[in-house]
Amino acid sequence: MLRMSTAFLRTLRDNPADAEVASHQLLVRAGYIRRAAPGIYTWLPLGLKVLRKVEQIVREEMDAAGSQELLFPGLLPREPYEATDRWAEYGDNLFRLQDRKGADMLLAPTHEEMFTLAVKDLCSSYKDLPLSLYQIQHKYRDELRPRAGLLRVREFVMKDAYSFDIDDEGLHRSYAQMREAYKRVFERLGLEVVIAKADAGAMGGSQSEEFLHPTEIGEDTLVMSDGGYAANVEAVTTVAPEPLTAEQIAELPAARTARTPGASTIASLVDHLNEAQPREDGRAWEKSDTLKALAYITIDADGAEEPLLVMIPGDREADEKRLEVALAPREFRPFTEDDFTRHPQFAKGYIGPVGFGLDTDAGANGIRVLVDPRVQAGTVWVAGANSADEHTIGLVAGRDFQADGFIEAAEVRDGDQAPDGSGPLRLTRGMEMGHIFELGRKYAEALDLQVLDQNGKQKTVTMGSYGIGVTRAVAAIAEKHHDEKGLAWPRSIAPMDVHVLATGKGTEVFEKAEEIVAALEAEGLDVLFDDRPKVSPGVKFKDSELLGIPTSVVIGRSLADGVVEVRDRASGSIDEVSPDEVVARVLQQVREG
Amino acid sequence: MLRMSTAFLRTLRDNPADAEVASHQLLVRAGYIRRAAPGIYTWLPLGLKVLRKVEQIVREEMDAAGSQELLFPGLLPREPYEATDRWAEYGDNLFRLQDRKGADMLLAPTHEEMFTLAVKDLCSSYKDLPLSLYQIQHKYRDELRPRAGLLRVREFVMKDAYSFDIDDEGLHRSYAQMREAYKRVFERLGLEVVIAKADAGAMGGSQSEEFLHPTEIGEDTLVMSDGGYAANVEAVTTVAPEPLTAEQIAELPAARTARTPGASTIASLVDHLNEAQPREDGRAWEKSDTLKALAYITIDADGAEEPLLVMIPGDREADEKRLEVALAPREFRPFTEDDFTRHPQFAKGYIGPVGFGLDTDAGANGIRVLVDPRVQAGTVWVAGANSADEHTIGLVAGRDFQADGFIEAAEVRDGDQAPDGSGPLRLTRGMEMGHIFELGRKYAEALDLQVLDQNGKQKTVTMGSYGIGVTRAVAAIAEKHHDEKGLAWPRSIAPMDVHVLATGKGTEVFEKAEEIVAALEAEGLDVLFDDRPKVSPGVKFKDSELLGIPTSVVIGRSLADGVVEVRDRASGSIDEVSPDEVVARVLQQVREG
Repeated sequence: MLRMSTAFLRTLRDNPADAEVASHQLLVRAGYIRRAAPGIYTWLPLGLKVLRKVEQIVREEMDAAGSQELLFPGLLPREPYEATDRWAEYGDNLFRLQDRKGADMLLAPTHEEMFTLAVKDLCSSYKDLPLSLYQIQHKYRDELRPRAGLLRVREFVMKDAYSFDIDDEGLHRSYAQMREAYKRVFERLGLEVVIAKADAGAMGGSQSEEFLHPTEIGEDTLVMSDGGYAANVEAVTTVAPEPLTAEQIAELPAARTARTPGASTIASLVDHLNEAQPREDGRAWEKSDTLKALAYITIDADGAEEPLLVMIPGDREADEKRLEVALAPREFRPFTEDDFTRHPQFAKGYIGPVGFGLDTDAGANGIRVLVDPRVQAGTVWVAGANSADEHTIGLVAGRDFQADGFIEAAEVRDGDQAPDGSGPLRLTRGMEMGHIFELGRKYAEALDLQVLDQNGKQKTVTMGSYGIGVTRAVAAIAEKHHDEKGLAWPRSIAPMDVHVLATGKGTEVFEKAEEIVAALEAEGLDVLFDDRPKVSPGVKFKDSELLGIPTSVVIGRSLADGVVEVRDRASGSIDEVSPDEVVARVLQQVREG
Repeated sequence: MLRMSTAFLRTLRDNPADAEVASHQLLVRAGYIRRAAPGIYTWLPLGLKVLRKVEQIVREEMDAAGSQELLFPGLLPREPYEATDRWAEYGDNLFRLQDRKGADMLLAPTHEEMFTLAVKDLCSSYKDLPLSLYQIQHKYRDELRPRAGLLRVREFVMKDAYSFDIDDEGLHRSYAQMREAYKRVFERLGLEVVIAKADAGAMGGSQSEEFLHPTEIGEDTLVMSDGGYAANVEAVTTVAPEPLTAEQIAELPAARTARTPGASTIASLVDHLNEAQPREDGRAWEKSDTLKALAYITIDADGAEEPLLVMIPGDREADEKRLEVALAPREFRPFTEDDFTRHPQFAKGYIGPVGFGLDTDAGANGIRVLVDPRVQAGTVWVAGANSADEHTIGLVAGRDFQADGFIEAAEVRDGDQAPDGSGPLRLTRGMEMGHIFELGRKYAEALDLQVLDQNGKQKTVTMGSYGIGVTRAVAAIAEKHHDEKGLAWPRSIAPMDVHVLATGKGTEVFEKAEEIVAALEAEGLDVLFDDRPKVSPGVKFKDSELLGIPTSVVIGRSLADGVVEVRDRASGSIDEVSPDEVVARVLQQVREG
């Protein structure tokens, strides 16, 4: 039991200045968390109870799925992260430090290396597998822009699990098992999630899915079709036309260069074409007939820079997040004026694919060019002629230019077709709550994790990786379960079961309240008791609504008439019951809830 | 239930090369912990269970004492630690780092600043006090010499609590309450402790006590008398003689200088005196008649150096730890040859107190001199004459030289008198398990923590500080509860309640074992089940003894005769019971234990 007269709790009437999303505002105002530094929070007593409940649900489902809990240090030596290249690849997101002897250390952002080494240390045979391990632990990432309270922070709690199998079949089984466990976790947390295809990115695995919680404040874009397709926008693959055959291409008219002064943007190019270069068949030129050139500098882990040309249909914008995933682990930035000066092959406003490419033996200029998957062999385009005030009309992909490859750099739009043929796509915002993927052998190879297989031969182990953002789950639940008055926790993770409010003035009210509190506690319920003697009923009600305990019991003026109230925070329902019935009524609510 | 056939557990037959103490050897060999870096450990599944049990006992007793749990970040900004000077004072023990924006940060070694600021943030009136807060959290200290497994590490779990009171009387009450809570914690952990006076040191509080666990491998020296005195040697005060009056001093013979060539050590000096300067009353010269000079350089937080002369009786050695406490927060080092060259006032081998001192107006040389408390006014000594090959005999303290103050720099010895008159002292080794002290207003003043008092005036809050080393408690318990075969956990913190061993070959044995395991689990017991099919009984017994689960059940060959064994790890007793009785017998052991 926690008495509000002595609790380390102060509710605030106003939203903190830096808080923009509801969960952040309410968690601070209700005294659950407190900012200690940018993106770093203190868990106050009630907040810590919520955090621990979320952790416990995650723990129980991991245990039920046969995963074993352990705990790695937060402060780690550089060497294992050096072996996997992540010491450099993490860039500025990694908190690095040196100890008193000058040894390089880091604050762990994730623990793939440590899990891999621990298994290498303890396991030697296929008989030790399959194996699933997890921890619930503080992680550190030096986010460039911490935001939205607990949603993007620099110190956070994460559950990370890894599976270890002797072969791919085992990995698929482990993956499927964790997928089921995750469904149960989010079900128990009262958090709707969509299981969306995810890009495994630099991790290089095969299957990869995110558990995305649909919410306006999500940082991810969730793409779904009515036919059941669901993916993070980063993982959506473009539906491309069939490439034409050499014979078909041979029949296409030759390309021709046209003067297009001042047409250095797609919009001005289309206007110019419709005015000065009308098509014979009378169709108007559209932006989708043109190619948009995107010039980037890509940067590898050592900081080495390289120019890159990306061509996408002129009616689409680039999607930087998709591009980021497509280029990872290389980073990138758009060309600056300086870059244009340094690389005169890029004729600003009039760039086209002809002459670009890595294959210098074939006469290309040595600069990589990647194109949207829609730019299949035989498709016809208008693009810059790599010379000021000139474009080429009727450029045929595969005939007039050869790209070094395809890239998913263009935006996905409402109405685009799902890659699995399940109909048109729609886009919503989502927040990543969990991520499961088949990591494969990347870490096992880098750190030489092998075991003896059934034939007595050394075999590299294959791994799966499974994460849940525990801190973020608290925020998402707060975000989902609130109204204009405050929080409304689901029972499974509420900091306390019941909030008892003594709102009268006489000693009788307080004595009866003490009695009811004792009776509720005797039933094993956690009680928050507003026993503050000189606080008005109005303030107590407001605090109660702000704190969001699912059930509250109000003992006040109506006690004289033999009535106390049992309130349900989520529905707002108020039951009037006699003091004798109150415990039974509360138990009913708690157990049904 | 944890099956050993699939558990992430590997026991080792040999002690790890770097392990010298039993707890370290056994915790690693039994698969409870694993070294990740110097002084940094991973908690493997069984170890984590023990750690969590210790944490839970500490948590329950803190809660019962009315302390409220919260959780501060591990990664903190520099500013609060700058305000209290601890950013500098911590020296190399602090892990410092910079974030991507160049802001100075630290890994918290303790959280006084954060607790103080949180209370400042939420509390404004004496009505909010008294208040007690705690956390159980990972701490970081960059120890120069991590050692003995979990006993001295760089990342560890600590429970730190703070009390906040409006006045000293309140602080004394809070302190007393925590003292009782600590007694209960260690009682439940099965860990004998002596409550010893401690030096509050740089913390500057008034009451300060350590909970020292007597053990040979302790780093502290515990000093006790039969009359009930107990203190850390660092806090022992010397029983000094009464100083003589000026009249008494006036009657003492004048000092005289004697040639003492080659007598640059105490031993050679005493030999020389007995040979060349025999006393008139025939008593032999003793080392205790002489003063030993100790020359140090002290260093403040900014690195500024200053020479210091310390004089102690010639029959005693300096105690560096007592000296450290006495000089804190200044650090120190003994004079090097260079220092002797730089400070020619120190005539190596022939240093005496005459002429030393800060009071240059009175003719002193400006170098601080501190003396042992036994060097009271009127005591008579032989000391160096500050000139090669000369000593002064009959030097009278307070007449021939004036010290700048007293210092507790000399060793305490078995047989010395307790300062409270409770008899002779005896010294043993102890390990600090907890520390409670009245911190006072140091942090509240530095960070401006004030509340309105009963008269509506701002008043600085007074604080108490209460720590328990949770990680270290695990090691101490392992150290205390083991034998040559392995660990023998007390039931309160054993990783599991029962270890069931199937040691036969037939399927019958394994089936019966499964049955018994299920029945024990149905009773709510945590079971470790050795179900490994092809492991010999001998190996299973050895593992069981090494792991140290308090009760084990052996189902083996004698099952054919209707007999299974219930073994008690601590006593070694073996009960033969029928399979039907085994659950009842185990429950009896668990509940009595």
